[in-house]
Amino acid sequence: MQLGLSVSDSDVSSFTPLVVLELADDTKAEAITWLLNRIRDKQQNGGAELLVNQLLFPAQDDQKPNPNVFVVGSTLQRLLNGAEDVGLFKEFQDGTMRGFTYANRESFNDFNGDGEGFLSDAECQYIIKHELDTLRAKNEEHVPGYPKLKLYPGKSVVRRLQSKGVLNQYFPLHNKEDLKRLSFSWYKKFKLSFQPLDDIRHYFGEGLALYFGFLEYFTFALVPMALIGIPYYLFDWEDYDKYVLFAVFNLVWSTVFLEVWKRCSATLAYGWGTLSRKKAFEEPRAGFHGALGFNPVTGREEPVYPSSKRQLRIYLVSVPFVLLCLYLSFYVMMVYFDMEFWAINIYNEDPSIATSILLFVPSIIYAVVIEIMNLLYRFAAEFLTDWENHRLESSFQNHLVLKVLVFNFVNCFASLFYIAFVMQDMVLLRQSLATLLITSQILNQVMEAFLPYWLQRRRNKKVHKRMRRLMGDKELPLLGQVKLETEMNTYLGTFDDYLEQFLLFGYVSLFSCVYPLAAVLVVLNNITEVYSDAFKMCHVFKRPFSEPATNIGVWQLAFETMSIIAVVTNCALIGLSPQVKAYFPESDTQLILIVVAIEHVLLAFKFILAFVIPDVPKHIQVNLAKLEFDSLEAFKKRRRALGR
Amino acid sequence: MQLGLSVSDSDVSSFTPLVVLELADDTKAEAITWLLNRIRDKQQNGGAELLVNQLLFPAQDDQKPNPNVFVVGSTLQRLLNGAEDVGLFKEFQDGTMRGFTYANRESFNDFNGDGEGFLSDAECQYIIKHELDTLRAKNEEHVPGYPKLKLYPGKSVVRRLQSKGVLNQYFPLHNKEDLKRLSFSWYKKFKLSFQPLDDIRHYFGEGLALYFGFLEYFTFALVPMALIGIPYYLFDWEDYDKYVLFAVFNLVWSTVFLEVWKRCSATLAYGWGTLSRKKAFEEPRAGFHGALGFNPVTGREEPVYPSSKRQLRIYLVSVPFVLLCLYLSFYVMMVYFDMEFWAINIYNEDPSIATSILLFVPSIIYAVVIEIMNLLYRFAAEFLTDWENHRLESSFQNHLVLKVLVFNFVNCFASLFYIAFVMQDMVLLRQSLATLLITSQILNQVMEAFLPYWLQRRRNKKVHKRMRRLMGDKELPLLGQVKLETEMNTYLGTFDDYLEQFLLFGYVSLFSCVYPLAAVLVVLNNITEVYSDAFKMCHVFKRPFSEPATNIGVWQLAFETMSIIAVVTNCALIGLSPQVKAYFPESDTQLILIVVAIEHVLLAFKFILAFVIPDVPKHIQVNLAKLEFDSLEAFKKRRRALGR
Repeated sequence: MQLGLSVSDSDVSSFTPLVVLELADDTKAEAITWLLNRIRDKQQNGGAELLVNQLLFPAQDDQKPNPNVFVVGSTLQRLLNGAEDVGLFKEFQDGTMRGFTYANRESFNDFNGDGEGFLSDAECQYIIKHELDTLRAKNEEHVPGYPKLKLYPGKSVVRRLQSKGVLNQYFPLHNKEDLKRLSFSWYKKFKLSFQPLDDIRHYFGEGLALYFGFLEYFTFALVPMALIGIPYYLFDWEDYDKYVLFAVFNLVWSTVFLEVWKRCSATLAYGWGTLSRKKAFEEPRAGFHGALGFNPVTGREEPVYPSSKRQLRIYLVSVPFVLLCLYLSFYVMMVYFDMEFWAINIYNEDPSIATSILLFVPSIIYAVVIEIMNLLYRFAAEFLTDWENHRLESSFQNHLVLKVLVFNFVNCFASLFYIAFVMQDMVLLRQSLATLLITSQILNQVMEAFLPYWLQRRRNKKVHKRMRRLMGDKELPLLGQVKLETEMNTYLGTFDDYLEQFLLFGYVSLFSCVYPLAAVLVVLNNITEVYSDAFKMCHVFKRPFSEPATNIGVWQLAFETMSIIAVVTNCALIGLSPQVKAYFPESDTQLILIVVAIEHVLLAFKFILAFVIPDVPKHIQVNLAKLEFDSLEAFKKRRRALGR
Repeated sequence: MQLGLSVSDSDVSSFTPLVVLELADDTKAEAITWLLNRIRDKQQNGGAELLVNQLLFPAQDDQKPNPNVFVVGSTLQRLLNGAEDVGLFKEFQDGTMRGFTYANRESFNDFNGDGEGFLSDAECQYIIKHELDTLRAKNEEHVPGYPKLKLYPGKSVVRRLQSKGVLNQYFPLHNKEDLKRLSFSWYKKFKLSFQPLDDIRHYFGEGLALYFGFLEYFTFALVPMALIGIPYYLFDWEDYDKYVLFAVFNLVWSTVFLEVWKRCSATLAYGWGTLSRKKAFEEPRAGFHGALGFNPVTGREEPVYPSSKRQLRIYLVSVPFVLLCLYLSFYVMMVYFDMEFWAINIYNEDPSIATSILLFVPSIIYAVVIEIMNLLYRFAAEFLTDWENHRLESSFQNHLVLKVLVFNFVNCFASLFYIAFVMQDMVLLRQSLATLLITSQILNQVMEAFLPYWLQRRRNKKVHKRMRRLMGDKELPLLGQVKLETEMNTYLGTFDDYLEQFLLFGYVSLFSCVYPLAAVLVVLNNITEVYSDAFKMCHVFKRPFSEPATNIGVWQLAFETMSIIAVVTNCALIGLSPQVKAYFPESDTQLILIVVAIEHVLLAFKFILAFVIPDVPKHIQVNLAKLEFDSLEAFKKRRRALGR
């Protein structure tokens, strides 16, 4: 075995390793041979035509290393063809973004010589992932050596191996040089500057870069609100007209910034070439199962699962489960209020420093419980959504997001709604809001970055020590790196990050006219959030595959819905405030009618604003129209040339 | 001249005339020669490659006939190529709709032999229109004989001639055989049946067929409301809970039917091949003017008009003008109320049959005045929108629709809103609603169909007599037909027809819980509307060019907005009703809060419903995805075949 080490290491150096494939360590030899052959085979034979090599780790006394770890790379030519396959958009010589074609490669900016450096690492890895994912079974009836791992023509080999646990994982390797440069410009220099979004996109892909773009944009958008909110806190302004002003500003502002974000994200996506890129045909997700049938679109053989069965599962199991969880959340909320009253009673009986601290304890406990419930529910939601057996990853994601959003919204804000509109206690509302917000921020930062980082560091040290012991002075950077990264946690996508921002946006906007300082807290949180998120991406998690994204997807809708709910809550809060009530001493009716009228006007204004502000900036519209026009003209010309 | 007649008539018979071109009768001979040459010229020389012939009408003693009338036709081969040019979708052999290509012509259903009968008349005429519209100037600097009619390379010749009044009009000819068959199946047989939408589309194109489809759908959708509304009228039901039931049903129903209409229109448009058809690049409208510059999209020379100037015109002139008109409309409304009080006073002083009839007079006068104001405003809006100098016909249309909609909405419904929410007089509201609705229905039918029909008949008779006198027994059907149709009125598009339905929808939905019988009246109106609209299309107006349409466009939005406003008004009306008030004797506050809560729930429900119901039926989604997938696969295969 010791011999294998040096052999594999010299082999590996023949190409740049980009992606790591880890098979289960008891995988049968014939399955491995078959898989490697299929990966290496020429494209015209239905192979992926990629380079692949085994990595052999030195054996250890206490633990046998997994012998089935492989690195995958590719020739430049293959990658360029792959770029055309996946429909990558690149900057053309006239400055517009166009679909890359190998035949026209010379006409693209940044294409020099043989095209070295034309594709970023992340793009190369994305292409390799695509080629691996679309490596399809030919006439094999099952995976060699595994009669139970059935295959049928057209089935993605990698997905089948993955769903049956033969393929443990595959992930892209970090590029140490680039990572160093990126992390320096991203979070290591302590000066005020924008994030290097283009570099982030280069290294992690568009999906993640858009998240960081949104985080930055959102934070900047909150600054005006925070600035206006500070004097309210400093001078203890309690006049209703000032609150009304603040609330109206808040509502209009949140509409405007969400609309303008669409334009920003379109600009970013255009510059990154994802805006006009055609969506590839979506394959079934790895976990999808069903009786073998025919896909009506492709006509290929594929598992088919009747959507009526899925609907039954959704409406008879998932929906009742969600409702049950919501009920549970309400129940916990009522327990919290009992605790709250109990604490207040103790304080009233014996007002001292100890009991005044006790006043905050229920809120803090409740905040922690909320976080724990959110976490538990998250697992249940994932399990249920998986069980619903959605064919597409996108539909799986949508159902998951919906489940999680509804619960988190209720779980986080129910107590605030209760305090605001049932108890109508504005002082308690302000206090609860502050406690919930601050506690959840602290918890989040700990759970999200520091805890994983600490665990990771411990693991790193162990691995380093082990490797050093085994290999002595011999430097084997690749083996060490692969070993380390294999054991890192997997980044599960931007879901949790967006969810956190969504809830923060709720804290800021829903009750903004009661607690203008919320915006300040969120701005402060987000400044550290940028750093901790950046750090966790670079050093805590495995590098994720880049994901082409045009916009923030369903989250745009979620934020817009929140801003609509905020109009309703803020109008109601203003109507409830004693100062406003004092203006209409003789009749509540008139007050309510005016508040409702204002609310309707604000809502109508929001919709008109959303309608009037174009989603894509003018100059990008022109560029897109140009592309469309050119392709139409080219099509006509080609047809005419074919002689009619 | 008499000689010319027979010559031209024998010439004409050499091809089927499809489109008539009428130039001004003083057009210079060299311009005519040039135009005809350009139309007849081969495509590779930049011509339209169409057939064109002059029609010579016999001279008359009292009136010199216009010598410059031409008929245009085409060879079958040219039309098939043109079908590919305009991107026509036809049914492929596998049952899906695909873009027609001449090379694959044999693979399309209904293509037999040389393709005779493959294209409908309307399609042929649409293709000829397209080819005429895209006949572009080459190096001519001006129209021969007209130094002032400047041309530049790429300028559409026909549009220039049209905008300067050299080309009076061009329109498609009716096909007497088809028209006879269509009108028989459409409105001549008096039995209950659906309209022959496919035949209408065949003859008049997709835009008009969609209007008639919508008219039919809307009428059927109102039937349940009408059925439920009848017992309220018969039994004088005045219980509030019944009204609430009716209103809720009404609101939910209107949301559902608008959503389902989207699916129906998608199904229709898919079957007609317009759903997945790519929009052609939009040329500037005929009236658009500006300094010569370059189009940023095409790079071609084209007039350019700065959008800042247009914005100034819109905000400094159009918007104030619209506001002024709205003010005027309010003023007229107040005058109406004065009249109304005056009539009531007279009745109260001396109650007799004469004075009880007098009670209805102000409403009727007001209804007539409203119609007249709408008509006048319509002209002003068209003039203003034209003056705003929009580059695209679509943007012109949108601005016109917006202007007209806002004014008509206010003009028609302001008095009802005033009665309902300021005067809070439900009896008067019901009476006014009925009077307005019935009067405007009667006026509409008269203005829209009977008056033009009567004028047309008079004109027809005159022409017939004249022709008979001149030619004696000689039958010259073509000359007679062209003469007749040249003098028919031009159909100005579906705008007015949709507008009428929009206002009717407003009468039904806005105050539905006060006057459930409105739905019955609208259903009755629409049944005659189908017949009168069908009749006017077939016999009163010139045949319009077919217009490819995917959906009813901006009207969908207009109807949806109306149904949202209806939620607000109906909730408010129910809250105002004395029976509901009686339920909350001690506090208005509680009542209002409950009404507002219900309103919010209904609105939320509407949005969720709109979100949940997919806009395109499943099987069409599958077909569209299939098309997309096939084109992607074909593209890949082609690339692979090209040897990479």
